Amino acid sequence: MIQVFDDAYFMKKALQEAETAFSKGEIPVGAIIVANNQIIARAHNLTEQLADVTAHAEMQAITAAASFIGGKYLLDCTLYVTLEPCQMCAGALYWSQISKIVFGATDVERGCGALGTKLHPKTKIVGGVLAEESADLMKRFFIEKRNLN
Amino acid sequence: MIQVFDDAYFMKKALQEAETAFSKGEIPVGAIIVANNQIIARAHNLTEQLADVTAHAEMQAITAAASFIGGKYLLDCTLYVTLEPCQMCAGALYWSQISKIVFGATDVERGCGALGTKLHPKTKIVGGVLAEESADLMKRFFIEKRNLN
Repeated sequence: MIQVFDDAYFMKKALQEAETAFSKGEIPVGAIIVANNQIIARAHNLTEQLADVTAHAEMQAITAAASFIGGKYLLDCTLYVTLEPCQMCAGALYWSQISKIVFGATDVERGCGALGTKLHPKTKIVGGVLAEESADLMKRFFIEKRNLN
Repeated sequence: MIQVFDDAYFMKKALQEAETAFSKGEIPVGAIIVANNQIIARAHNLTEQLADVTAHAEMQAITAAASFIGGKYLLDCTLYVTLEPCQMCAGALYWSQISKIVFGATDVERGCGALGTKLHPKTKIVGGVLAEESADLMKRFFIEKRNLN
């Protein structure tokens, strides 16, 4: 049987969110949250537009998913995010008790892996899904930014 | 000269926020952000009311202070919070580049100190200001909760 709803399928949706962030001049990171193969939240980084460091894609997705569910725990949910979560976002995911985190590119400097942020024992984490596409988008963004300055 | 605006003065304001959280049935944590001896943001934990794990007092205070300032960096600002920040809040404070964090009670299990969350090199952190009052409020809250169940 063909697996339509695989990790790459949902990561492509997160990448679309990242592209929307890019088009707004935001660092291009996108996130979606999935429950029962249904996308229940979509978000992209808005830290510049909102002038708010807390407006990472994951943070907004967590809030939106909780609102959809009507409860604060994201049990049986999976977050797809184009870049490895930072300490703040991994810390929020810890509180949410989310089942699974799938990320694209690794953030070797500020990612939760490098910085040892604690995840909830219920949470599995997998990286490297469409990592090249996610990293390429980031590179393209910073090259364009540099050329504009 | 009498020092009116000392850490205890501002922590009392954060404690008032924590008491408001208590009265709403929220885990009693309060936070304020101060710039030039002026309180520019006040917030208390609202995770239950909003059904949102990201609604910690510090997170809301960061967003409110950035809105007041009109920029996302909280340079020359001090956060007063009744309980040691968790990974999520410390991670957000990292991004904000806040000058100083003053907390009350230590969170030995989930605090940023115990979990080794990285703060920005510009940020100083001090704990133990009105720690007993903060811890007593938490204890009273959990005793009341237990008696209600």
